[in-house]
Amino acid sequence: MSLRIMLVDQDSARSAILEQALNDAGHKVVARIKHGHNLLRELKECQPDMVIMDLEAPGRDTLEQMREISRDQPKPIILFSNKRDGDYIRQAVQAGVSAYVVDGLSQERIMPIVEVAMARFREFEALKRELQETKTQLADRKVVDKAKGILMQRKGMSEDEAYQLLRKTAMSRNMRIADVARTLLSLEGLTD
Amino acid sequence: MSLRIMLVDQDSARSAILEQALNDAGHKVVARIKHGHNLLRELKECQPDMVIMDLEAPGRDTLEQMREISRDQPKPIILFSNKRDGDYIRQAVQAGVSAYVVDGLSQERIMPIVEVAMARFREFEALKRELQETKTQLADRKVVDKAKGILMQRKGMSEDEAYQLLRKTAMSRNMRIADVARTLLSLEGLTD
Repeated sequence: MSLRIMLVDQDSARSAILEQALNDAGHKVVARIKHGHNLLRELKECQPDMVIMDLEAPGRDTLEQMREISRDQPKPIILFSNKRDGDYIRQAVQAGVSAYVVDGLSQERIMPIVEVAMARFREFEALKRELQETKTQLADRKVVDKAKGILMQRKGMSEDEAYQLLRKTAMSRNMRIADVARTLLSLEGLTD
Repeated sequence: MSLRIMLVDQDSARSAILEQALNDAGHKVVARIKHGHNLLRELKECQPDMVIMDLEAPGRDTLEQMREISRDQPKPIILFSNKRDGDYIRQAVQAGVSAYVVDGLSQERIMPIVEVAMARFREFEALKRELQETKTQLADRKVVDKAKGILMQRKGMSEDEAYQLLRKTAMSRNMRIADVARTLLSLEGLTD
């Protein structure tokens, strides 16, 4: 596994060791940016496989940056820091950090840390995706049921007739059935 | 945060250092068992807050044990090991390990490792719970729709009448509406 890594640091001397360790482990630091720069823009530009932050004393702004990454462009994030405050660690995990590593780095530790972070990120993303899909299915089903009810009431249709009408309309308009249903509800002044 | 910890080891000398570090960090090792013992039974008995495995060279049996814990009695699991094989690490993460730590322990590293593992476990469990609830809602909705359809067809009821019948039956039988619907489908020889 060879990864393209974006490195965020404060202190170049400190992170030079990290960069060397990453190179030795077969990864490539494709961007190295100073803490405080516009991380999201850089992220969009260079599309790394992973973000590694090496910050002796990360603060609230770092938590905010990690939340933005997790929301807008999810990537595995490793934070190397000296901050051992339990409350901060919990917030960092909630903000989406894949690995929070306190303590000096050694060449030997880097490989398994990167592996674990990558595996954990994939696991978490798969679970989030499944949740999102299930929520969409549930929402779609609710809205289609509501639209069927309206058609049955307004047009004296059976449930099956109502569904077939939605389905036919979706096909001819090249829309999803749930979106036809949403349009119908909007026209009726109802929200889903 | 003071945790009740179950420690699983192979080599008592190696894990004595770990136990000392945990004690110093304010945690309590409530059970210490040899690798290979019936972990699940011990787990049920002593109900620790966390399982820490300290195994120089964990194998397939360890992965299997972690899968069982994750499935039957989810707990945060930390694995300290010397195994740095990428493939094994990925399987351990999939098996539900909350932290996989390669490399010798130091007293200083223990606290943040435990904090991160605990936070990550809670985060993951919350997501899994939300997924489970959403799946249940979706399945319930499907089964209730199917049962309504049958009542509408068999008894010439409107959709609302069919729903009210299911609801009334659920109340009088002290069952969930979805379970009344499942019973109806079973009686009809249909599965949900």
